[in-house]
Amino acid sequence: MTRPTDVDRDLAVTSRRRFLRDGAVIGGAVVAGGLGTGSLGTGGLGAGEARAADADNLPPNVPEWTKTPGDAMGSQLYGTPSPFEKNIVKNIPKNLKQYLSASGRTPLQDLDGIITPNGLFYERHHGGVPTIDPAQHRLMLHGLVDRPMIFTMEDLRRFPSQSRIHFLECSGNPAYTKPFGKTASDLVGLLSCAEWTGVSLKLVLQEAGLRPDAKWVVAEGADAAALTRSIPIETSKYTDLMPDGTAREFTFYMEAKSIITRPSGGQRLTTSGFHEITGIAWSGHGKIKRVDVSVDDGKTWQEAQLQEPVLTRALTRFRLPWHWDGQSAVIQSRAIDETGYAQPTLAELLAVRGDNSFYHNNAIWPWRIASDGEVTNAAA
Amino acid sequence: MTRPTDVDRDLAVTSRRRFLRDGAVIGGAVVAGGLGTGSLGTGGLGAGEARAADADNLPPNVPEWTKTPGDAMGSQLYGTPSPFEKNIVKNIPKNLKQYLSASGRTPLQDLDGIITPNGLFYERHHGGVPTIDPAQHRLMLHGLVDRPMIFTMEDLRRFPSQSRIHFLECSGNPAYTKPFGKTASDLVGLLSCAEWTGVSLKLVLQEAGLRPDAKWVVAEGADAAALTRSIPIETSKYTDLMPDGTAREFTFYMEAKSIITRPSGGQRLTTSGFHEITGIAWSGHGKIKRVDVSVDDGKTWQEAQLQEPVLTRALTRFRLPWHWDGQSAVIQSRAIDETGYAQPTLAELLAVRGDNSFYHNNAIWPWRIASDGEVTNAAA
Repeated sequence: MTRPTDVDRDLAVTSRRRFLRDGAVIGGAVVAGGLGTGSLGTGGLGAGEARAADADNLPPNVPEWTKTPGDAMGSQLYGTPSPFEKNIVKNIPKNLKQYLSASGRTPLQDLDGIITPNGLFYERHHGGVPTIDPAQHRLMLHGLVDRPMIFTMEDLRRFPSQSRIHFLECSGNPAYTKPFGKTASDLVGLLSCAEWTGVSLKLVLQEAGLRPDAKWVVAEGADAAALTRSIPIETSKYTDLMPDGTAREFTFYMEAKSIITRPSGGQRLTTSGFHEITGIAWSGHGKIKRVDVSVDDGKTWQEAQLQEPVLTRALTRFRLPWHWDGQSAVIQSRAIDETGYAQPTLAELLAVRGDNSFYHNNAIWPWRIASDGEVTNAAA
Repeated sequence: MTRPTDVDRDLAVTSRRRFLRDGAVIGGAVVAGGLGTGSLGTGGLGAGEARAADADNLPPNVPEWTKTPGDAMGSQLYGTPSPFEKNIVKNIPKNLKQYLSASGRTPLQDLDGIITPNGLFYERHHGGVPTIDPAQHRLMLHGLVDRPMIFTMEDLRRFPSQSRIHFLECSGNPAYTKPFGKTASDLVGLLSCAEWTGVSLKLVLQEAGLRPDAKWVVAEGADAAALTRSIPIETSKYTDLMPDGTAREFTFYMEAKSIITRPSGGQRLTTSGFHEITGIAWSGHGKIKRVDVSVDDGKTWQEAQLQEPVLTRALTRFRLPWHWDGQSAVIQSRAIDETGYAQPTLAELLAVRGDNSFYHNNAIWPWRIASDGEVTNAAA
C-alpha cells in the first residue's frame, strides 16, 4: 500500500518532469492564452503529444467558427449537447423483444466529476416510460395513520424541503454471470448521481399521524406497472438467493463499490507516458473513506486521491497519476467506505454467495490494457 | 436578529402544529404510500390545503398513465424534460434587433437546490452561438514562456484534472437602473452553477515554462468575437464608473449576493398559512457564512438555514419556514460571506457608486407580496 505522502511525492516528481513531452521552441513576447486555431501541421511528434509551437505548427488559418458568426440564440429554449457529442447518449439495448420492461444506462466512461447530466440519467421502466401530469398527480397516505391524507404537488411544495446530492442505483447492476459487458456503462451503468429536492417522508407521515405500531411502508408508483416496494419505517422486495438455497432477505443497502471509468473498456490509450486513471466510488452506507488502485493485476495497491466534496451516499470521484510503460497491464479499483467495509473481488463474492444471486453484485472490476493501448473487460 | 436556536424553536413549534390543515378522517388498516390517483373531489377545503382522504376524496378512477403502458425507451437517447415542464426554459429577450450579442437567462425561480440543469445554464454570446469541433480545437500558449505550446483536447485530457462545483455569473447581473425586471431570472438570471472538470491553468503554464516576469494572461476565445479577457497571473476588462467620473479599475471579484427564488416575482401564494421561503446565495470570495431573511420590509431579520453542502464559490441554498398571515408583506434576503462582507441594499450601493456603474450590482432585492398573494418586484 502506498500511503498518501508517497502519492504526493510521485505527483511532485511527475510535475517536475512535466506531463507531456514537447519538441522545438520559439520565442514570444507576452503571455497569451489563445484558444482556437485551424488544422495544424503535426510535425515529427507522436500522436497525443503536445506540440511545441514552431513555425510549422502555428495555425495556418483561422477556423470557420472564428471567422463566421455563430447561430442565433432562441432556437433551443432548453439546451442540448453539442452535435460533436452525439455519441454520448444513453446505452439502450437494441432489438428488445418487448418494450415494457426496459432500461437505459448512463455512459459512465464518457463522464467526468460526480453529477450525471439530467439527459444521461439512467432509466429502468416496468410499464413503459410514463408521462405524468404533476397537476393531476396525487400522493395518498392511508393505513396505520390517524389522518389518511391526499396531497397535491402544490400541497407538498409548501412543506419544508431538503436538497441532497445522492446516487441512485439499480440493484441488478451488474449480473453475476457472463456475459458481463464491454464498457463501464454495460457493467454498472444503471447508476447515476444528481441533486434531488423533496420533502422528508418522515414529515409527511407525521402530518398524517403515523401510529406507533406501523412498521413498514408500501410505496406504490403511478406508472402502468403500479410498481410497489416495501420499506421498513426505521428507514424490500429484494432477496438474494444463496448457494445452499436459502435467501438473504430484505437486502436494502447498496454496499461499497467502485469502477475505473478512464481508461476503461472500449477506450484506447494512444500513447505511452503519463495518463490519469480516474473513476467513481460509492456506498449506500455513507461516505467513501478511501479508494485503492492497482495497476499490476492486483499485486500491489496505491491510494487514489479523492476529489472533494466527498458526500454521503453520493458518487465520489477518484484519481491516480500513472505512467504507462506501453506494456500490457491490468488495472482495477477497490472502495472502502466509512464503516470500514472494503469492496470484494468477484471471486470472493462468488465464494460467499454463489452465482444464484441476481442482485447486489459489488465486485471489483478489472480492465486489461493491451500493448497496443486497447482496453477490454479483464473478467469477461 | 433571530439566532439559530430561535429558528429551530419556531420550526419545532411549526412541526407540532402540523404544516397544512386537514379535514375529516377515515380509518385504515395498513400504512401505504400510494402514488397516483385521477381527478379528485375537493370537498369543502380551501385551495392549496391537503385533503383528508374521506369517501368523497378517494380516487374515483385510476389515471390514464397507470392504466395504459408508457412510451417505448429509445426514442430519446439524450433525455429532455417532461412535456409538462415546457415553460421552464431559458429566458431569452424577444425581438432583438441583432442576434450576435445576446443572452439567455436561467429561470432561477423555477429551480431547486444549487445545481443548474445543463439545458438551463445561462448563455452570453458576442458573436452568435459558436459550434466548435473538439477534434479541431487547439489551445495555444505563447509569450513569456520558455516553450510556446499548442495542445489538442486529447493532450489536455492526459493531464491531472480537477472537478469543482462553482457558479458562473455575468458581471452585468443586474443593471443599476430601471427597468429592473419582474422575475428572479430577469434580475439575476445571468447566473448558473454546475460541476466543471478541467486542468488547472497553473499546471499548463508550468508545462510551457512560465517566466517569472510574466504578470498577466490574455485569454482569447475561439468564438467569432475572438473575445479576450485579461487576468492577473496571481490569480479584467471590467471597470466600474464612479459618481465623480473616476473608475474602479480591474474589478474581478463577484461580491456576496443572494435572492429569494420562492416566493418571487411572477409567482402567487394561493393560500395563507405555512410556506417555505427559499433562495440562493453566492460569493466570489469563498463560502457563504450566513443568510438573513426579513419578512417585514427590512425592520427585523432572521437567520435562514443553509442547505449542505456549502461549497466555496458555489450557489448555497437557504430556507426559512414562514407563516404568511395573508397581509401584504415585503420579503428579502442578505448574504454574508466568510470574509464577513455583508450584501448591501441598493440605496447603500448607489450612495457609494452612483448610477454610472453597469457591472457588479450585488444589491439586496426585495419582493412585495400583495394580500391576494401576487408577488412583484418591490424595487421596480
